[in-house]
Amino acid sequence: MPGVGQSGPVTEQRSVAIWRDGAAVAVPADEPVLTASDQGLVRGDGVFESVAVVDGATPHLAAHLARMQRSAALLELDHPGDDVWRALADTVLDGWPAGTEGLLRLFLTRGPGDGAPPTALALLAPVPEETVRQRTSGVSVVSLSLGVPADLRAQAPWLLGGAKTLSYAVNMAAYRHAHRLGADDVVLTSLEGQLLEGPTSTVAWAAGGTLHTPPVETGILPGTTVARLFERAEETGWPTARTRGTVDDLHAADAVWLLSGVRGAAAVHTLDGVRRTDAGLTARVQELLAR
Amino acid sequence: MPGVGQSGPVTEQRSVAIWRDGAAVAVPADEPVLTASDQGLVRGDGVFESVAVVDGATPHLAAHLARMQRSAALLELDHPGDDVWRALADTVLDGWPAGTEGLLRLFLTRGPGDGAPPTALALLAPVPEETVRQRTSGVSVVSLSLGVPADLRAQAPWLLGGAKTLSYAVNMAAYRHAHRLGADDVVLTSLEGQLLEGPTSTVAWAAGGTLHTPPVETGILPGTTVARLFERAEETGWPTARTRGTVDDLHAADAVWLLSGVRGAAAVHTLDGVRRTDAGLTARVQELLAR
Repeated sequence: MPGVGQSGPVTEQRSVAIWRDGAAVAVPADEPVLTASDQGLVRGDGVFESVAVVDGATPHLAAHLARMQRSAALLELDHPGDDVWRALADTVLDGWPAGTEGLLRLFLTRGPGDGAPPTALALLAPVPEETVRQRTSGVSVVSLSLGVPADLRAQAPWLLGGAKTLSYAVNMAAYRHAHRLGADDVVLTSLEGQLLEGPTSTVAWAAGGTLHTPPVETGILPGTTVARLFERAEETGWPTARTRGTVDDLHAADAVWLLSGVRGAAAVHTLDGVRRTDAGLTARVQELLAR
Repeated sequence: MPGVGQSGPVTEQRSVAIWRDGAAVAVPADEPVLTASDQGLVRGDGVFESVAVVDGATPHLAAHLARMQRSAALLELDHPGDDVWRALADTVLDGWPAGTEGLLRLFLTRGPGDGAPPTALALLAPVPEETVRQRTSGVSVVSLSLGVPADLRAQAPWLLGGAKTLSYAVNMAAYRHAHRLGADDVVLTSLEGQLLEGPTSTVAWAAGGTLHTPPVETGILPGTTVARLFERAEETGWPTARTRGTVDDLHAADAVWLLSGVRGAAAVHTLDGVRRTDAGLTARVQELLAR
């Protein structure tokens, strides 16, 4: 078994903290923190958030914590309270170099079972270079069907629409499929061809002088970055709308972005192999997000 | 944060082994084995098998290892080779009391990333009492839609149909939904109402003198227990068929079972609130599985 289970290369600084006996405890990044019984491993049964760390701080943490509360409720997970996440975040941020842009992940799993409590931990790592590159240079995107009707998940709570769960194997498989097709990223669509979301991002587009994004009633995650963008756009007189769109709408749009907390607004420069422009709007969107 | 992160009660014997530097290493069950960066946690990105342990042995291990190879290939995961799994199984079985029926779980995750190898580990625990009770007394089942067309997953490899992944959050949510409805288990159906599978089992039914189960072309897992049952049924002159059925077919059947490696054949005594019998066939099915 070549390589499996051997120590991998440590190529970057990482910082980890876990909640133990009422306190956030820093642990070395290469030290195991999860038992084999933890339902986060056994069943992908838990929720998470990915939070941008800029200048050593987490300016948008509150929006992520609010969404984590909702995700936990959808999974009927005991939520530890936001103070736990703030303590975990403070612990991993302690000593983090201010000049290193970070990706902070917060995990809440159902724990090891048998009445044991949930597991809460934080992982802080540098933002990958490719993420920064895509923020600057945009992304090539393919559309892939998620296979479910757009209105089904709102009626079928067991499908966990709107919850940011640890069960992202399909999201990762969608990325691998896109990479095989020579693309960077994915727009998932409903069975009928309605726009849903990216595997780890929200879709937005500019058309007719308005910013659009799909409604959360389609079962997508409520994006924290799109919420911030739309609020600031409205303040500057740029109208926004929740719109049920299609891939054709994206082809016809003035600009298309994939929005996420860490990467920000990545302009879609190629969609299903067709090059497109952003009508010079990406700078304006990124400026609104940077405010 | 009441309880979260505190040590849970140790109510049962468990045995854990992990593959490290070319060898299976036994570790205490309450010792963490997975780092915070492991993609098994971060993304539910990995595959697993649940294997029955009877009289201290794993009589059906080979079928599970074959399926794990297929699952790993569908996820483009480096598979360590069956010898690794056999060594891990031997390690957790060493000292296991022969009189304790066991549930052996084998996990393969994508590892911590950055070019590090996959993580391979094994967890052995006693079979829960409720599982034994359901094998003896049967289960109450509700049908729930998975929301995807029956023929879609075969055409959309990124949806990972047929792969037994760690991303089981929806499977677990389906169980919680069933429990809220007063049921024990679930039959998932396609968007059109075709029978698929249980969250952790295969559906089979007897009708017209034949044993039926849905075809794997519907994107379901290829069940190891149904394969064994059908092979032995054929040997005794009981015909078998891969049949696209509906919940109505289950209502009209002579008997319905949920099949899985550890629980075996659990007779469905109630389906969507309607009581049903098994025409005395469960004993025959269980006898075939016990051969």
